[in-house]
Amino acid sequence: MIKAGIIGATGYAGAELVRILLRHPDVEIVWYGSRSYVEQPYADIYRNMFKLVEEKCLDDDLDTLAKEADVIFTATPQGYLAGVMTDELLDQVKFVDLSADYRLTDVHIYEEWYKITHKSPQFIPEAVYGLCEIHREDIKKARLVANPGCYTTCSILTAWPLVKKGLIDPDTLIIDAKSGTSGAGRSAKTANLFCEVNENMKAYGVTTHRHTPEIEEQLSLAAGHPLALSFTPHLVPMNRGILVTEYATLTGDHTVDELRDALIEQYKDEPFIRVLPKGVCPETRWVEGSNFVDINVMVDARTHRAIIMGALDNLVKGAAGQAVQNMNLMFGLKEDAGLDLVPLFP
Amino acid sequence: MIKAGIIGATGYAGAELVRILLRHPDVEIVWYGSRSYVEQPYADIYRNMFKLVEEKCLDDDLDTLAKEADVIFTATPQGYLAGVMTDELLDQVKFVDLSADYRLTDVHIYEEWYKITHKSPQFIPEAVYGLCEIHREDIKKARLVANPGCYTTCSILTAWPLVKKGLIDPDTLIIDAKSGTSGAGRSAKTANLFCEVNENMKAYGVTTHRHTPEIEEQLSLAAGHPLALSFTPHLVPMNRGILVTEYATLTGDHTVDELRDALIEQYKDEPFIRVLPKGVCPETRWVEGSNFVDINVMVDARTHRAIIMGALDNLVKGAAGQAVQNMNLMFGLKEDAGLDLVPLFP
Amino acid sequence: MIKAGIIGATGYAGAELVRILLRHPDVEIVWYGSRSYVEQPYADIYRNMFKLVEEKCLDDDLDTLAKEADVIFTATPQGYLAGVMTDELLDQVKFVDLSADYRLTDVHIYEEWYKITHKSPQFIPEAVYGLCEIHREDIKKARLVANPGCYTTCSILTAWPLVKKGLIDPDTLIIDAKSGTSGAGRSAKTANLFCEVNENMKAYGVTTHRHTPEIEEQLSLAAGHPLALSFTPHLVPMNRGILVTEYATLTGDHTVDELRDALIEQYKDEPFIRVLPKGVCPETRWVEGSNFVDINVMVDARTHRAIIMGALDNLVKGAAGQAVQNMNLMFGLKEDAGLDLVPLFP
Amino acid sequence: MIKAGIIGATGYAGAELVRILLRHPDVEIVWYGSRSYVEQPYADIYRNMFKLVEEKCLDDDLDTLAKEADVIFTATPQGYLAGVMTDELLDQVKFVDLSADYRLTDVHIYEEWYKITHKSPQFIPEAVYGLCEIHREDIKKARLVANPGCYTTCSILTAWPLVKKGLIDPDTLIIDAKSGTSGAGRSAKTANLFCEVNENMKAYGVTTHRHTPEIEEQLSLAAGHPLALSFTPHLVPMNRGILVTEYATLTGDHTVDELRDALIEQYKDEPFIRVLPKGVCPETRWVEGSNFVDINVMVDARTHRAIIMGALDNLVKGAAGQAVQNMNLMFGLKEDAGLDLVPLFP
Repeated sequence: MIKAGIIGATGYAGAELVRILLRHPDVEIVWYGSRSYVEQPYADIYRNMFKLVEEKCLDDDLDTLAKEADVIFTATPQGYLAGVMTDELLDQVKFVDLSADYRLTDVHIYEEWYKITHKSPQFIPEAVYGLCEIHREDIKKARLVANPGCYTTCSILTAWPLVKKGLIDPDTLIIDAKSGTSGAGRSAKTANLFCEVNENMKAYGVTTHRHTPEIEEQLSLAAGHPLALSFTPHLVPMNRGILVTEYATLTGDHTVDELRDALIEQYKDEPFIRVLPKGVCPETRWVEGSNFVDINVMVDARTHRAIIMGALDNLVKGAAGQAVQNMNLMFGLKEDAGLDLVPLFP
Repeated sequence: MIKAGIIGATGYAGAELVRILLRHPDVEIVWYGSRSYVEQPYADIYRNMFKLVEEKCLDDDLDTLAKEADVIFTATPQGYLAGVMTDELLDQVKFVDLSADYRLTDVHIYEEWYKITHKSPQFIPEAVYGLCEIHREDIKKARLVANPGCYTTCSILTAWPLVKKGLIDPDTLIIDAKSGTSGAGRSAKTANLFCEVNENMKAYGVTTHRHTPEIEEQLSLAAGHPLALSFTPHLVPMNRGILVTEYATLTGDHTVDELRDALIEQYKDEPFIRVLPKGVCPETRWVEGSNFVDINVMVDARTHRAIIMGALDNLVKGAAGQAVQNMNLMFGLKEDAGLDLVPLFP
Repeated sequence: MIKAGIIGATGYAGAELVRILLRHPDVEIVWYGSRSYVEQPYADIYRNMFKLVEEKCLDDDLDTLAKEADVIFTATPQGYLAGVMTDELLDQVKFVDLSADYRLTDVHIYEEWYKITHKSPQFIPEAVYGLCEIHREDIKKARLVANPGCYTTCSILTAWPLVKKGLIDPDTLIIDAKSGTSGAGRSAKTANLFCEVNENMKAYGVTTHRHTPEIEEQLSLAAGHPLALSFTPHLVPMNRGILVTEYATLTGDHTVDELRDALIEQYKDEPFIRVLPKGVCPETRWVEGSNFVDINVMVDARTHRAIIMGALDNLVKGAAGQAVQNMNLMFGLKEDAGLDLVPLFP
Repeated sequence: MIKAGIIGATGYAGAELVRILLRHPDVEIVWYGSRSYVEQPYADIYRNMFKLVEEKCLDDDLDTLAKEADVIFTATPQGYLAGVMTDELLDQVKFVDLSADYRLTDVHIYEEWYKITHKSPQFIPEAVYGLCEIHREDIKKARLVANPGCYTTCSILTAWPLVKKGLIDPDTLIIDAKSGTSGAGRSAKTANLFCEVNENMKAYGVTTHRHTPEIEEQLSLAAGHPLALSFTPHLVPMNRGILVTEYATLTGDHTVDELRDALIEQYKDEPFIRVLPKGVCPETRWVEGSNFVDINVMVDARTHRAIIMGALDNLVKGAAGQAVQNMNLMFGLKEDAGLDLVPLFP
């Protein structure tokens, strides 16, 4: 059994890690880390875990944890892991970091978008970007995996094959993204109160959202050259789910079948990516609770554009599920171990 | 592998059976019955099942199905199974009926509350009421199990130990129940449209709801004499979940600890019933997607009453989960096989 | 024009006062009090008021305000008004207090349920309980009106005529109440985050909710003797609305028509109380945004009980609307001035 | 008093007309038309209107209605008004048509997008497109006004000043729109059930939505030449509200201030358009229940694009409110008569 520790186990992503790992056949959770709730029973915070988790929350003692665990998941604020990472830790235990600390290869871009100083840029070259469908082989050998953001995973996977094949012009790419509210986290802010979010729809972080450079860096790998794109996130009154609607100009008179073939070809062996039947739009309800990404593409002949759509559960494939998928790869387990989650509907 | 057929596989309860059985280690679904969608791929109706279920929907051909299946789940309207049941069928295959056809021992009460004629009352004596925690031993030997209603399961289990022990006066019992909207089914009715249900709360079926006699019959078994109680259901703008708040006069100066001890004693070995810590109220979010029932009780010394509360997921323990639990018992499987579902939150 | 000041203008009840008073033909708001947002434009906090309210938020300077205003609405935490009230203030300006400070005639009961010391019990005798339909004549002469709680208004008005006429036994009264989340206020608490409230239903404050003694005191006026009742509030995933379902044993073989006649007779001239047609259950959606209370009663002959139901908008008739209705009475205006609000649906 | 008849009074847009007109100082509703509910009291269908509307629903007898009314609002399916319109009717009464029948000047485009034959194209030239802020003077003289669609109103008003001034390239315009579910109407369809819409987000009508040509026709007036754009609607789990996020390439190095100045200049005297403060994103909650359109624009210097955003209430400015605004103009009333609706929040 692989021993797993979770730092930040009482945030939504951390709690989702607990939900998934509890039923993972090869993993045992040995550390429920939560600075805010030290010494409190975990199931007092998340009562869904009553009778399932007996442990108490522990403080963030990484040195001890590194000795007890085989893998550490950090579901922590930006800057936390960068601030504590050392060679000694990396020699002892593998890390899957759900924050952005090691996602960007250029530390200046990180510091510019996140407005914080990176405390350990020396580890950036070693870190592998944990988008399994794109960087699978590197992940298998990694000690430190930077788990992608929720918007990012959906945005990149949806566009990747079309950019890669040159079917769309990446410089025209516009990503309009919609997210459920669990993406905003569990901290007590007025803006995230029920009455403020319910019966409302809004854009936020327009032109400045931190997932933008991450999407750009990855898609530039597909394009073969740097690119800049528009990314606009929106908050939706639902708990889970991300939907992206992407717009790009076609590079030629490509048909919808050509575009769909590119998606199918890229993802035909992927366990978690479902290219939907022609004409069917992804919907967040069909992936809720699962590690699936549903994608599809349409062609607007009138405007010569592709409309590419993707849906995933931000807490699963957008966070905890992908983290477990990364762990599976890092430890040589079956990639879908613990992840055969059937979407819950309604 | 046990071969299971589902009649009514495209209703919400039927679809939840599919979700659960797909991951049941000992069961294979051989029949996705749906009159409304014959010959259509099941995953075209429930797109969460895309890539998980390849089969098409089939018509309700019970004779053929009885030969192919070991167990048939009927998630059908009232009167359906009573209208087609025969000795020949019962000799070939076991039934778990999610409708009310065989739940009440007195056919007159059935006909009075359901306003339909029962077509095969001769099978009522053989049928076993499938509330596992109460009738476990009978269920193990049954060929025909009447799976309890969603409100019913929650209402009975919550009150049972206190009635049984004589701690509350059953003739004072008032049940105020609240249900998510999936309990209203998937048929296209104006009253169940999003805009009609959202941002609204209402009672319905006041004094006339059909689950009333079912609760009364079962609790009279605990009381040792017939009883009449008040049951008022309410519709809540959420997908899943039932919460019951029950009020009853104490039979003496019982403390909350005495009442809680009665609950704990009754349910201490039950895998799916969680008696919450003292002072903690059940909430539907903590059981969503799981087969758990969370219960607790408080005492109002001022009014000399017990307030008993219970929460479950109406589609799991209130329908499909309990049906699988019954099947497990009927076939000598582990009672929680396929049912180790961790509640999904948020 | 009557000049009105609002202390606590940035809470949900305060904001609803602003919404209503902005269109009141006889009132001008002269003071948007908000300690948390002093000097910030009110419309920066409530952007629905952009272009409608130009004023900035002001600190709580009651002495200045008392000179500028004819009436002060205090939509403040318990204890605030009791802590600052003086004879000088009362000589200068009328008060409608939306907190509980002056609702209970017995200061000991206040201190016991609210766990705070009352700083100015000497004003309690002068204060009038502002349930217009019951205390109209006293309100007209009052300088200090204690505006009832949201649960309270709904609970009392629904039961009052039946208690008054002796048709139900008040000692058997059980009130099961359900509230939208705006009743929980606008402060940033984890428990009120969207993801914690959405898709959930729970009871809270069981046996201890502070509105209990207020309901008891008022209904004891109708009963003619002190009484104790059970009151259980629940939180519902919707913004606005309170629904109460009340249970009581009939004092005789009363028919539903007798009970309904009592409601109709009591309320036939009331502008804001709608006794619904026979058999129709109140629903919160039908009163949203308005000052209406919808009520009805059913009889359960089997259990010899009345089930009485009421619905109102907790921010209007349950708070700001009733406060304006009180102000109208206190100043001799038309009782429904500014309150001819048509319910908004959907 | 202007006498108004409503055909289609029991749809959501028709019901919103009732809500608004009931408080309009110069209008009396004389006809509640509803084929589905003939002879039923209107308040039995919309119980929010109990005690407010005493009338019964009437069949669609246009000849009689034309004699009794000064203005007829048709909140009817596409093709209805076109199928019954005659010169005689137009001579007797003014029409505000909430359907699409007379919105497009080219009947071929209508027939292509709506897949129905237009029965009375001869009236198209007379009809005026009822977007008050753009066609005010023509509306004042009109007998037949084609009330714009909900998506359309928001999409056009948001982009108009920037297209008009040549600040953005209209051929790059991409409109990503999000709508509350009341926009889907009140007919009983499985897809619009609570459990199907709640906790979900999806695009629909991708590349084919019927509001597309309407937006194109109007914006081509601003551009001075025909244009084609991308329009993608999405369904959001909320009752009311439309949010549009529009993307377009800047025609030069325009600053956000230049763009905002264009908006402000265009709309400075408009009673219902609020250009928000710099940096503030429109949100649907701030306009709910009102006739406001909130708009703003941001500049993404990295991609040389403008992101323009608008929010309105689809049932008010997107349907009934705009219809009343049109009526006010047609009858020489104050443009905002009956429309001084303060947005309801929360």
